[in-house]
Amino acid sequence: MNLDNLPRLFPPRVLDRLRELVDIDACLVVSDFRHPEAARALAGTDLLITSWGSPPIDQSVLEAAPRLRAILHAAGTVRGYVTDAVWERGLLVSSMAQANAIPVAEYTLAAILLAGKNAFMLRETFTSSRGAPDPDRERRRDTLGNHHRRVGVIGASRVGRRLLELLRPLDFDVYLSDPYIGPSEATDLGAVLLSLDDLLRSSDIVTLHAPDLPQTRGMLDRRRLALIPDGATLINTSRGALIESDALTDELVSGRLSAVLDVTDPEPLPEDSPLYRLPNVFLTPHIAGSLGNELSRIGDAVVAEVERLVGGQPLQHQVTRSDLGRVA
Amino acid sequence: MNLDNLPRLFPPRVLDRLRELVDIDACLVVSDFRHPEAARALAGTDLLITSWGSPPIDQSVLEAAPRLRAILHAAGTVRGYVTDAVWERGLLVSSMAQANAIPVAEYTLAAILLAGKNAFMLRETFTSSRGAPDPDRERRRDTLGNHHRRVGVIGASRVGRRLLELLRPLDFDVYLSDPYIGPSEATDLGAVLLSLDDLLRSSDIVTLHAPDLPQTRGMLDRRRLALIPDGATLINTSRGALIESDALTDELVSGRLSAVLDVTDPEPLPEDSPLYRLPNVFLTPHIAGSLGNELSRIGDAVVAEVERLVGGQPLQHQVTRSDLGRVA
Repeated sequence: MNLDNLPRLFPPRVLDRLRELVDIDACLVVSDFRHPEAARALAGTDLLITSWGSPPIDQSVLEAAPRLRAILHAAGTVRGYVTDAVWERGLLVSSMAQANAIPVAEYTLAAILLAGKNAFMLRETFTSSRGAPDPDRERRRDTLGNHHRRVGVIGASRVGRRLLELLRPLDFDVYLSDPYIGPSEATDLGAVLLSLDDLLRSSDIVTLHAPDLPQTRGMLDRRRLALIPDGATLINTSRGALIESDALTDELVSGRLSAVLDVTDPEPLPEDSPLYRLPNVFLTPHIAGSLGNELSRIGDAVVAEVERLVGGQPLQHQVTRSDLGRVA
Repeated sequence: MNLDNLPRLFPPRVLDRLRELVDIDACLVVSDFRHPEAARALAGTDLLITSWGSPPIDQSVLEAAPRLRAILHAAGTVRGYVTDAVWERGLLVSSMAQANAIPVAEYTLAAILLAGKNAFMLRETFTSSRGAPDPDRERRRDTLGNHHRRVGVIGASRVGRRLLELLRPLDFDVYLSDPYIGPSEATDLGAVLLSLDDLLRSSDIVTLHAPDLPQTRGMLDRRRLALIPDGATLINTSRGALIESDALTDELVSGRLSAVLDVTDPEPLPEDSPLYRLPNVFLTPHIAGSLGNELSRIGDAVVAEVERLVGGQPLQHQVTRSDLGRVA
């Protein structure tokens, strides 16, 4: 994994817990399995902990690791790290995507609450006018508020589900679109199930929590963006490629929609993108996911998973090959 | 009350429920009780519904309203509306401050979550540099995150308590300062009780939820602001007068602290205030409280209170004269 992340994922408190469970060599952080030291270690390895920056676990790695039983991925998706060879050998794979989903859901909750107040835009007009009375104040204020504000959640993913939990104690009207769940499951999650098109037509705030798969790329294309009501806010804390970039830019430049964008396509946007200076766009540099102290939450989840492995219990965050066709 | 607010507080759905319970004249919105029509109506009034813009209920009003039993205030504090004469006559007084506390707590939650990610500041640096690589990126990211971030809540007020509820499912370390509660009550609220000075010294994010009383004005003075750790964020969604303005400005101009300010002293700030353009200040025009669709939540609360009155049950949001010495 990326060496920089090691002390963040596994600060001393977490590393000490891990040491009580297994023999680890915390000084051996591998970024290339062909390194002689890595190859030597692999020969005796039962358990691999991977993360952002890990090299792919391919056939040559597996051949060098005859004892390997499980891969615990201390990050989000295992895509790009776990290859077909891993599935074919039947190794246990577990992803800490659940722990990584927490900060993304929290960030999205905050974006929803402030979007429902039009806070981002009102801040711009208030500060750029230096507090001058707003002639449009009453009309503006009339359209504000989070009481029965309609929120459309696209994707009952890990982030989507965590977000739905966080929305429960609030008074939003929540819609959900997901091809893999039914109306009663949506009800259990606190939402009304709608088709994607109907969700877009019916939401004041739309938030994307779909995985980045061939079939989801550009899912919010020009036609679908046009379905979103005038004045609505689109939130993207998942992947930029889910939205057709040019169409999104047009909707934002015209001012018809507002957006909170933590991810874009490309990322970062070209220097001349108008999105950098639009008052109706709150643009941040991909910070919703686990950063800083949030990385140790992932380390905690790894330790808990190791405890289960060592204790002979089933993994809590197991990922299978078939999951990857529909989840991140 | 302010006539503009009537259809927002009592949209048709809410007004219809009210009509089922009591005889009301929704066309008679009073801003001056000396108006002959108002005086006639007062003579037969059992129940007054007041809100922002209501004239004070003083002795002369009470003399004209011999049947009056209760005042239901469809807004926050009753201070300035309910006079001593009301208490002396022993009328029931109820304030919908609880319903009004909900959006303030929600707004504050959003501010905390984004402050913990340093999102406001990162947005400024990212967009003003138009996506240029941030040489300080790793160091900046290291200090981010909401996992065991220390949040100090000043005041177990209605807003403070609702905020504490909303913080429960998150992984913050929460401190509380309030002169009227003890350590075990704080624990029940999900927080550790600290003195105000200790809370300020120990918090990465400080949020103010104290009432505006003579003894709280300027409570965050220069000495106390200096106790807050470098790099922390101060959130004020209550009243500007609780913070010593010049001292706050100095701390923000120096960049030692960041702030999310929905209220200021004075409000708005003078045109030449540096706070309008500081990248470490997210300044909004007093929008955290009930606005737009959130006003009907207050109307709903009034109807529920009328139901209790009519049904002979105790009021849920009764305010007494002694409460006003310590609550908003």
